[in-house]
Amino acid sequence: MRTDYCGNINASYIGQTVTLCGWVNRRRDLGGVIFIDLRDREGLVQVVFDPDLVELFDTANSLRNEFCVQLSGLVRARPAGQVNADMSTGEIEMLGKSLTILNKSAPLPLDWNQENSEEQRLKYRYLDLRRPLMSDRLKFRAKVTHAVRNFMDGAGFLDIETPILTKATPEGARDYLVPSRTHKGQFFALPQSPQLFKQLLMMAGMDRYYQIVKCFRDEDLRADRQPEFTQIDIETTFLDANGVMAIAESMIRDLFQKMLNVDLGDFPQMTYAEAMRRFGSDKPDLRNPLELCDVADLVKDVEFQVFSGPANDANGRVAVIRVPGGASLSRKQLDDYAKFVGIYGAKGLAWMKVNDLAAGMEGLQSPVLKFLSEDVAQGIVARCGAQTGDLILFGADSKTVVTEALGALRLKLGEDLGLLQGEWRPLWVVDFPMFEEVDGRLYALHHPFTAPRDMTPEQLAADPANAISNAYDMVLNGCELGGGSVRIHQQDMQAKVFQLLGISDEEAQIKFGFLLEALKYGTPPHAGLAFGLDRLVMLMTGATSIRDVMAFPKTNTAACPLTDAPGEANPEQLKELAIQVVKPTIEK
Amino acid sequence: MRTDYCGNINASYIGQTVTLCGWVNRRRDLGGVIFIDLRDREGLVQVVFDPDLVELFDTANSLRNEFCVQLSGLVRARPAGQVNADMSTGEIEMLGKSLTILNKSAPLPLDWNQENSEEQRLKYRYLDLRRPLMSDRLKFRAKVTHAVRNFMDGAGFLDIETPILTKATPEGARDYLVPSRTHKGQFFALPQSPQLFKQLLMMAGMDRYYQIVKCFRDEDLRADRQPEFTQIDIETTFLDANGVMAIAESMIRDLFQKMLNVDLGDFPQMTYAEAMRRFGSDKPDLRNPLELCDVADLVKDVEFQVFSGPANDANGRVAVIRVPGGASLSRKQLDDYAKFVGIYGAKGLAWMKVNDLAAGMEGLQSPVLKFLSEDVAQGIVARCGAQTGDLILFGADSKTVVTEALGALRLKLGEDLGLLQGEWRPLWVVDFPMFEEVDGRLYALHHPFTAPRDMTPEQLAADPANAISNAYDMVLNGCELGGGSVRIHQQDMQAKVFQLLGISDEEAQIKFGFLLEALKYGTPPHAGLAFGLDRLVMLMTGATSIRDVMAFPKTNTAACPLTDAPGEANPEQLKELAIQVVKPTIEK
Repeated sequence: MRTDYCGNINASYIGQTVTLCGWVNRRRDLGGVIFIDLRDREGLVQVVFDPDLVELFDTANSLRNEFCVQLSGLVRARPAGQVNADMSTGEIEMLGKSLTILNKSAPLPLDWNQENSEEQRLKYRYLDLRRPLMSDRLKFRAKVTHAVRNFMDGAGFLDIETPILTKATPEGARDYLVPSRTHKGQFFALPQSPQLFKQLLMMAGMDRYYQIVKCFRDEDLRADRQPEFTQIDIETTFLDANGVMAIAESMIRDLFQKMLNVDLGDFPQMTYAEAMRRFGSDKPDLRNPLELCDVADLVKDVEFQVFSGPANDANGRVAVIRVPGGASLSRKQLDDYAKFVGIYGAKGLAWMKVNDLAAGMEGLQSPVLKFLSEDVAQGIVARCGAQTGDLILFGADSKTVVTEALGALRLKLGEDLGLLQGEWRPLWVVDFPMFEEVDGRLYALHHPFTAPRDMTPEQLAADPANAISNAYDMVLNGCELGGGSVRIHQQDMQAKVFQLLGISDEEAQIKFGFLLEALKYGTPPHAGLAFGLDRLVMLMTGATSIRDVMAFPKTNTAACPLTDAPGEANPEQLKELAIQVVKPTIEK
Repeated sequence: MRTDYCGNINASYIGQTVTLCGWVNRRRDLGGVIFIDLRDREGLVQVVFDPDLVELFDTANSLRNEFCVQLSGLVRARPAGQVNADMSTGEIEMLGKSLTILNKSAPLPLDWNQENSEEQRLKYRYLDLRRPLMSDRLKFRAKVTHAVRNFMDGAGFLDIETPILTKATPEGARDYLVPSRTHKGQFFALPQSPQLFKQLLMMAGMDRYYQIVKCFRDEDLRADRQPEFTQIDIETTFLDANGVMAIAESMIRDLFQKMLNVDLGDFPQMTYAEAMRRFGSDKPDLRNPLELCDVADLVKDVEFQVFSGPANDANGRVAVIRVPGGASLSRKQLDDYAKFVGIYGAKGLAWMKVNDLAAGMEGLQSPVLKFLSEDVAQGIVARCGAQTGDLILFGADSKTVVTEALGALRLKLGEDLGLLQGEWRPLWVVDFPMFEEVDGRLYALHHPFTAPRDMTPEQLAADPANAISNAYDMVLNGCELGGGSVRIHQQDMQAKVFQLLGISDEEAQIKFGFLLEALKYGTPPHAGLAFGLDRLVMLMTGATSIRDVMAFPKTNTAACPLTDAPGEANPEQLKELAIQVVKPTIEK
């Protein structure tokens, strides 16, 4: 039906007659001549209809936006002065010779020149996706997955599909459930990740596995979450953490090179402890030059309890952020930042301006200056390297509050003051703790299949709170792109970790009996990781939501305004599934 | 941890020291020397341990089957007479120099040298997959998907993901349902195919789409069905049926060339009517030379009602199959074939043996010969081209029964008598009817979005039972590999088809309102198809079940013996989903 795509026609076609199919992006009537911008997936081309060809002109005249047409025309150079350097086809235009309307269009319910509500955009997704911005993102995403697959295939990874209908467990509170018809009263769960299946594939000797795979999580949706999302899932055998990280890093580097012509270079590694200390985050944005600087030792003996209290508490922290040039911030701005850190539990935000470094105490300005000796004040200034014109902001509270509050404040200051440097700053964060302790109970920081670093089960049990795991996260510009770990491959270690997590032997058997059984039969050392594809593509395309890089995302109440899903089910079918809907007595 | 894969070590490595990781496939103690076959994903290599290295020898001596080990050794030529031409590594062996046991193995619960039950194989899938036969199939499958993706990408197709959580409809009786937590009492359905989403992508201007995608169907499982299966799903814009078929054919041809070094050549096209007439099937196995041959006109006037009845009935059919050399079949064999056609509703199986063609009626032998005149009998012999020694089998009943019974009989004879010719015989079946009529109601033969061939809505409504659809199936060796159609792209036609299918306007609005709405806005002509990936890989690898080309299939009660899915759900979670399990009053 066509000889080429609209977006491909350029000066090399001049003098040729081409046939195109597409949509009327815009129709203009200028001095009795009709101009059409015809659009397809690859771009736009301008077509001119001459009033001398009466029938053709009349058809062209009847065109409206988004009519779907087939047309033939002679490619010719645009008249001097009409060349449009912003269009790939801007040097040429087509003189229309024949025109068939393939399908008419009613006026669109979306105006592309306006901001449309998310609801409207999703309801008419097929129209929203016609916008070049959106179709370019889906094209970009398809190229990303293709490049990833080529890389993985070239590196000897097998693309193996794992099940979507998996085991429901009483703990899977955020699992989507699927009632079974053949086993009435029982349920499948949609996988939150193929974690155990990929480990089983390593036990099966598949050696290197990858999959670009849908995962599911039934949680309250935030801006950047969707009920179904896509992972680049990777697992390897006989490689240590550095081996896996090298492959993953090389895959991402290759991708940025191919897709964006960006050389990410070698990724630095940073321990979790250092990231929390210097950046107040386990996913530091290294484009932001601000850092947290500990000063507890300097304020241990001051009378000001707000500082000396946390400074003398093993679970406390006192730290500052130096803001270059920040002395010019207004009282109002400082108050706003104090409110901001309040979100993270900080009870205030002490500050100190260095108005004149050379003037000693005289050159400093701060509501808390009266509580500090000259030695202490100057010590803090020296410690963080503050210069004339800088601002010092204080955090003094529990370690958690200070780290979180200053970590968040650092990001906000970086954005507000336009401090970000460089475009892409990747790194690896490593040496995470094995466990988090909450109310005396241990929780796995990654998941319960993560191996500790260089330990026997006995050593792990002796001091679990301080055990370091063999896990790693890839972070880019403050976003976690992916993460993974070396897995436990020995049964005694796996049993010990379940025990430390408070999982009884009986419960472990019910939920993970097959894993413990599988670990008996020569399980190889294995390790892997997973990337969030949606987020990766979002970052690479500069989109602000993962919804904008998915064809048919759901709203933040997990609904699809286009198809009106979810919907009512067939009552007969529910009967066959042995379930019934219970209307809540009190409507929420 | 290793320098290479076991299966890669060959004579070019002689003199080198290599390090390998893998599993002990077999350990033998021959005259005080220990031989190990070490296995990884790529193959086996033989390692010899010399008793002079005592410590190493003792470790080697402690090895048992399926221990996971790392070992280094010197590659050397095998002694003359010990070369194994069946192994890729059969020219060499390794002299063990160091050995680390990475993980021990308990004795396997599966004996690979015996047939294991399907249940056992699935329960210990990670062990079953270690068998080279099984791991080779998964490797083959990964190569197939990669080749398909490369082909599609090269042809300008975009890999776009469609949702797994889709709309439940009261008609989706075989849908898997997923209760929604945020919209209590409502359900998502897992897609039986992404049909409407891919059509919406064409409406969105995506032009060419493909996806290798999971689909779901909750039906009673037969040998060759699984609750979740994988489709190669394709949709295109601005192409007619032949355009789409050319791309799909070329993709499959390319695949067979690359993977099996087989040239499938150009695929013939056959109409549905011809396929049913000549082969009694809409997916004829062209390797089978037997054909159905119509003889109703010859037996119209015989007194034998069994023949003349159907021959004079517009809905009847009388046909024969000539079996070359079949005159030697015993009475017992003929009785068994009569029983066989009984399955398909045939009330008997009349036969005629051509013992001596030259001898006229004398040379024929048949229980029904007495009912036939010489002209009729000779006419039948001539019509089907029977020669001395051949057998003629009769079908006389309703068109449906004769076609199905002889179609099935043809396949059975072909197999029983070893008549199949050629290895791969692909074809396209085209010109399907739009509808099937059952009890006066029309059903879509493909699906309700399939366009009729060259018709207006009015012409379609005038004689729907005889309308031909613009659908096509790709058939290989009697298996439907894939199928598709040109889709309806005009709203009036889509509304008319819904109407003919007995879908009320209200019902159409509820179920397909979004499609009818989308058809208003310049929907382009589009067409596509889908291939069953599991079946394709099964055929290509010679496996006998799609379970053998999937990593983690389910049993025929849709359960997973490995993870013990489905399972009990969390009662709190069911409450939150506003559903409860209803124990049936009568246990089935």
